[in-house]
Amino acid sequence: MAKNEIPTLSDLFRERFFIDDPETAYLDGNSLGRLPLATRDILNQVIQEQWGRELIRSWNQHWLPLTLRIREKIAKLIGAETDEVLVGDSTSVNLFKLAQACLDTFAPGSKVLSDSTNFPSDLYILQGLCARTSGRVVLNQFDLSHCSTEEIENSLVQQMTQSTKLVVLSHVHYQSGYLFSMERLNSRAREIGAKVIWDVSHSVGALPIDVRKSDCDMLVGCCYKYLNGGPGAPAFLYLRRELQSQLRNPIQGWFGAADPFAFSDIYQPQHGIEQFAVGTPCVLSMAAIEPGVDLVLEAGVAQIRTRSLELTDRFIEGLESIPNVFGYSLVTPRGKDHRGSHVSVRHEHAWQITQSLIHDFKVIPDYREPSMIRFGITPLYTNETDIERAVTALRRAVGERTYENYSREKRGVT
Amino acid sequence: MAKNEIPTLSDLFRERFFIDDPETAYLDGNSLGRLPLATRDILNQVIQEQWGRELIRSWNQHWLPLTLRIREKIAKLIGAETDEVLVGDSTSVNLFKLAQACLDTFAPGSKVLSDSTNFPSDLYILQGLCARTSGRVVLNQFDLSHCSTEEIENSLVQQMTQSTKLVVLSHVHYQSGYLFSMERLNSRAREIGAKVIWDVSHSVGALPIDVRKSDCDMLVGCCYKYLNGGPGAPAFLYLRRELQSQLRNPIQGWFGAADPFAFSDIYQPQHGIEQFAVGTPCVLSMAAIEPGVDLVLEAGVAQIRTRSLELTDRFIEGLESIPNVFGYSLVTPRGKDHRGSHVSVRHEHAWQITQSLIHDFKVIPDYREPSMIRFGITPLYTNETDIERAVTALRRAVGERTYENYSREKRGVT
Repeated sequence: MAKNEIPTLSDLFRERFFIDDPETAYLDGNSLGRLPLATRDILNQVIQEQWGRELIRSWNQHWLPLTLRIREKIAKLIGAETDEVLVGDSTSVNLFKLAQACLDTFAPGSKVLSDSTNFPSDLYILQGLCARTSGRVVLNQFDLSHCSTEEIENSLVQQMTQSTKLVVLSHVHYQSGYLFSMERLNSRAREIGAKVIWDVSHSVGALPIDVRKSDCDMLVGCCYKYLNGGPGAPAFLYLRRELQSQLRNPIQGWFGAADPFAFSDIYQPQHGIEQFAVGTPCVLSMAAIEPGVDLVLEAGVAQIRTRSLELTDRFIEGLESIPNVFGYSLVTPRGKDHRGSHVSVRHEHAWQITQSLIHDFKVIPDYREPSMIRFGITPLYTNETDIERAVTALRRAVGERTYENYSREKRGVT
Repeated sequence: MAKNEIPTLSDLFRERFFIDDPETAYLDGNSLGRLPLATRDILNQVIQEQWGRELIRSWNQHWLPLTLRIREKIAKLIGAETDEVLVGDSTSVNLFKLAQACLDTFAPGSKVLSDSTNFPSDLYILQGLCARTSGRVVLNQFDLSHCSTEEIENSLVQQMTQSTKLVVLSHVHYQSGYLFSMERLNSRAREIGAKVIWDVSHSVGALPIDVRKSDCDMLVGCCYKYLNGGPGAPAFLYLRRELQSQLRNPIQGWFGAADPFAFSDIYQPQHGIEQFAVGTPCVLSMAAIEPGVDLVLEAGVAQIRTRSLELTDRFIEGLESIPNVFGYSLVTPRGKDHRGSHVSVRHEHAWQITQSLIHDFKVIPDYREPSMIRFGITPLYTNETDIERAVTALRRAVGERTYENYSREKRGVT
């Protein structure tokens, strides 16, 4: 499979995942990563031995240490310290906690800036938070959809004025795959005294994140995409140490209290990141995260990025080899500095084509309203064969009109 | 094991759980219920087949239907309609959502009433919420610790005045095991125009709950105790239909939006209970809930209650047979109408005794600060032998001074 003698990441790591049908090109790891074989084994252990046999004793012996261990590993992945990362709750709940904590410190007239094409759940959380301030804080959902790749960041920078106190953006855009420059936008935020929360759901595990080098305040991110942590895996948040004493978790649960097992009737927050914990962590889903993160750390995120660019390049070249008349257009930026690890393609019949790719060609991308097909590249298991299958399938679905056999039905999940 | 010819619930159901050491009396199902054998099998299926093999397709085929199915079953268990129940997030996050939604509708000067010995996480959530109203809403943490069993509800009723707009109580008290009368307190709340949120974590699955008969507004509850749903299992909430259009979820995530997969940039809440959903549900932990709920439904919660009272009675009688000079005192009310399914015992050396019970006698209760030992009775697997072992062990731990071998260490988890 490799073009030269050096084995590729998929040569090395593909066999560490459960792959029942090697003929299927699974290009949806940006939605739900594959099952690592180690995860299956570890979950058996957690279920049978830790829950079944050791029961309540496992909290001290296994499960409290587990959450700390995962935290440490995710911190390593993003260049943070362990005491700046917390794992638990969903991405949306984590964004709520951090954004509400920021809003609680804002003077009237403050603005929150986001992009109207940002992932909807992030927008919805912000809309809810701002609406509850009775006009004290306003959300500016700036429309980036008409900006060219070159204009996006300039336009955002122009929107960041003195009244902007919080900026919430996705590091890699869930639709276009556009990769924002954390450094540039964080730097501008610093100039105007704003804070930034980055949603790294579509970048973590797929490309290097260095919170120190990029001078990041806060991140939220999910573990079920490029980290292969399992369906709906608990999410994580990063909060830089300097901000931990300034912000207060609005959802004061017992896992964020100074001494949860003292059962005091007055909440005293833990110092540091711990105060952003809330309830009892869901252990089974939590345990599934670790092996996926281990694989990413073992492969090295710089190597993953290099290989991801090779494969996305190859996919884009393949796509560009399809005649224009077939009606595909590339949404994802061509430049390597401006794209993540999925490639998005627009087509008038995107939904039907997606169905044909899945059912006629065993190529699994995902579909996004109203006309987008996303192809996720996860270098640990995606290889050139997958890419070639995908390009061929795109060509045949239109060329042979196989997509016409499909009519529109109920939509699915990210 | 049964004293007469009719098989007991544990005769019928004990073998449906993973029990590796029948010599161990596990009396901590009020903290973490045992592993149902069916759960192990179902999780294997979810991991290997649904995640591993079917991957993203499982969202539509398995995981969205799963959350609806669990909701329906929990609704059945508490006498609610399916569209009044939601499963997901932690108990603390669910309490936050419901209580904040209530607070958002309150006029200045409103009061929230709880009991200062209520489960700390519930108190902490309320403290956080009220603190953020800048004095608009005040929390009254009424101290019930000096009330006799007879006085508790009268005292609470007296605290429920015209300014009280929300009452938050545990149905069964996590320490004493006191069972509040939902009907009585709901009825008083109705008189003064207050709403009530009951935390049923320590009662659901152990005794009948009927939201219609008791006229309940809202419940929150966890699935990892008497429902045997696994460590940190997602929690549930119930919100009566009439209130659903009056209250608004403060954490507006995409799973609560009218059409999550339309990816609109403006949040439109779903009608009804769905708007209280937030982020992507953690599937593995969610899937573990169902078999435990099925077992409770199969056994029948009325039968479980009858048997629980038999076993708690027997335990209390055993305890009362230990000479006073041994220093134990019963905390849980003696009357059947006023206790749940765990029995709490106080002793000056409770922590050491707990250690001795576990390590010397294979009896596993749990310890609560500063001097309480809790014995949880789960009739599906707890039987008379367990009870007898526990009573004997309590007698010997003090009588033979085995507890003196243990010195105080780090505390554990609920």
